[in-house]
Amino acid sequence: MHSNLPVDASRIAADIEALADITEPGRPWTRRAFSPLFLEGRAYVERRMRDAGLETHIDHAGNLIGRRPGKKGGGTLIIGSHSDTVPEGGRFDGIAGLIAALEVARSLADRGIELDHDLEIVDFLAEEVSPFGVSCIGSRGMTGQRPDAWLTRMADGRSLAAGITEVGGDVNAAKARTDIKGFLELHIEQGTVLEREGINIGVVTAISGITRIEIVIEGRADHAGTTVMPFRKDALVAASEIVLAIREAGLELSKTPGHFTATVGEFEIEPNAANVIPSRVRMLIDARAELREDMEVFCTHLDTIAARTAERWGVTIAAPVRISDVVATPCDPQVLAILEQAADGAGISHRRMASGAGHDTGWMAKVAPAAMIFIPCKEGRSHCAEEWAETDDIALGTAVLFEAVQDMDRRLSEES
Amino acid sequence: MHSNLPVDASRIAADIEALADITEPGRPWTRRAFSPLFLEGRAYVERRMRDAGLETHIDHAGNLIGRRPGKKGGGTLIIGSHSDTVPEGGRFDGIAGLIAALEVARSLADRGIELDHDLEIVDFLAEEVSPFGVSCIGSRGMTGQRPDAWLTRMADGRSLAAGITEVGGDVNAAKARTDIKGFLELHIEQGTVLEREGINIGVVTAISGITRIEIVIEGRADHAGTTVMPFRKDALVAASEIVLAIREAGLELSKTPGHFTATVGEFEIEPNAANVIPSRVRMLIDARAELREDMEVFCTHLDTIAARTAERWGVTIAAPVRISDVVATPCDPQVLAILEQAADGAGISHRRMASGAGHDTGWMAKVAPAAMIFIPCKEGRSHCAEEWAETDDIALGTAVLFEAVQDMDRRLSEES
Repeated sequence: MHSNLPVDASRIAADIEALADITEPGRPWTRRAFSPLFLEGRAYVERRMRDAGLETHIDHAGNLIGRRPGKKGGGTLIIGSHSDTVPEGGRFDGIAGLIAALEVARSLADRGIELDHDLEIVDFLAEEVSPFGVSCIGSRGMTGQRPDAWLTRMADGRSLAAGITEVGGDVNAAKARTDIKGFLELHIEQGTVLEREGINIGVVTAISGITRIEIVIEGRADHAGTTVMPFRKDALVAASEIVLAIREAGLELSKTPGHFTATVGEFEIEPNAANVIPSRVRMLIDARAELREDMEVFCTHLDTIAARTAERWGVTIAAPVRISDVVATPCDPQVLAILEQAADGAGISHRRMASGAGHDTGWMAKVAPAAMIFIPCKEGRSHCAEEWAETDDIALGTAVLFEAVQDMDRRLSEES
Repeated sequence: MHSNLPVDASRIAADIEALADITEPGRPWTRRAFSPLFLEGRAYVERRMRDAGLETHIDHAGNLIGRRPGKKGGGTLIIGSHSDTVPEGGRFDGIAGLIAALEVARSLADRGIELDHDLEIVDFLAEEVSPFGVSCIGSRGMTGQRPDAWLTRMADGRSLAAGITEVGGDVNAAKARTDIKGFLELHIEQGTVLEREGINIGVVTAISGITRIEIVIEGRADHAGTTVMPFRKDALVAASEIVLAIREAGLELSKTPGHFTATVGEFEIEPNAANVIPSRVRMLIDARAELREDMEVFCTHLDTIAARTAERWGVTIAAPVRISDVVATPCDPQVLAILEQAADGAGISHRRMASGAGHDTGWMAKVAPAAMIFIPCKEGRSHCAEEWAETDDIALGTAVLFEAVQDMDRRLSEES
């Protein structure tokens, strides 16, 4: 069906396979940011960048950059993703997008195509939560959005500032870039929408906002054998009702336009003893919304759920607390149209969808027109050893990336 | 109302207060079995036993015994409870019953009453879960029900056998007693039935059986942001439904005759990470039943709940596993009648009820006619610093104990 793609699927597969080999033995696929294995992986990527004719360097923020100068200059288009992984997972998460970007550079070179603008292939530093406890360190650093307070965070006996130096960056030279004219990132979907619907790629309309909300339920630690059923203040029973109500609210909001999810991911009970009625439950809710109004509706409903549950079970529940609250980042409408045209031109099926996960695109989109291409991944599995994407699917997404970069370059020239 | 009691409330209060003073400082009230404080508490109890004219010794099982020989012999009546506490709780749990028994001996002496049978006041060793991880060590030891395997259990660098030697016992001299003709124990209710109903004492019909059941729910650890709501296998959502169903089943069974409680006391989720859908929940259910048929109904219903929940949420739930299963121990019908007559004679209100908690009586009742007297405790609080019982209530229970012991002695003589 897509036999005449402008990119080489076998080259993509070979590079992804080579990076997969650079893993902690017996714990595939682990190559965490700042580790020796991470540097080994980057050395491989840098060699392949040079093989593709790119000029490589590490920027002040610790990002590995392969540069391809344009004919006219006047700004930079960036494509890329990340080579670091979560522990025990992530064979394609980040890697697929980085190698896709590298393949675009190779295909341009193969065809002798010169762009007007500079093109950079970027391996962003530490997109995943790093040992320093923070993520998207490279994309935030490149765009002047890395909090200064992060630099003194410690891991393995050294500060983040020192960690960035170790990978070749220099926080003292930090300067937010102003030359970026556009950004594109290919990534596995990490969900099942494309797979279930049999669609080749997702055109990502937004990086969902993430709100984390803590609820603490205070009941009473009575004797499990002697406290008769009607006179209990069981924090776990009350919490269970809240978990089900959150799931129901999330499901309803997911049926309306705009991506929405709600998950209770952290949940601990006290005293957690066989013969004692649970006295306390703490839960942390992860809610993600493409549309801010959905999040506000959810949070208001959560207040109601908490108050109603407290009254019904005779427990105490303080008003739910927003621990963190990041609004959604929309992708650029014009870039979305470019991606769709590129896909249509190559006969590649597509649909719009929001990203429920955070990505470097979320930070790049704050400073430049940006969008993402999602490709299907098997059963939506991600951040685990089972994570899998078919080479053919990656190649289709890379073909769209290849066409879109050239289109963005042309339009930028026409605009100027 | 009860101004002419045959026991001295102020003596009872003074002894309980004196024992309360023997606690880990700043951590009231802690006097765990086998600790130096425990031995200090026992030294006090032994002095008070001798003051009451009792002959004291430590039996092979580590129980402190104060003996009052009878006129005729031919068997022993035992009354008592325990002086050890759980950490940070237990000002009255065990202590009230031990001092009540001591007061019975004193009141008999004050009145020059001699029983036909020998009477023993017993401070059972380690009724609470001890540092060795087991409980009711003394009552099981006295009656030949202490598993030999327990003796090699270790705590604080020495075996239980050595621990029993330290408190004055001798496991090599172990011999189950055959002379016990009856047993009575006064104890705080550790529930709210007497307090709510305004009844002076509970006549305990049985020590409830305890069944512990483990349920493990296996879902799937997917990304919390990208996995759309309808296609999740959320182990916590499924587990929450089970918790509520268990509470409902427990409530229904508690409405039928026979004490019944069901509690999920232990509950852990994996991976317990904010951005990951819970993949696994393990819960431990503590179910207590006076009537075995209630427990069977509950366990059968639990199988149904597990199967139904697994199907509804697409998770895997193995058949619930009975980790431990102890059937209820009924108290002796004739002794129950004696207690009720004693209460009626003194104008003390009473009701029958089962004990939801385990007690030394549970083991003594296996070898001799036995029953318990419950007294009210404030708000049912127990095993915590707030545990409280009014001196007047303890005195009323002690008066019943005083009369019942004499009645049992008389009836035993008539029978023989």
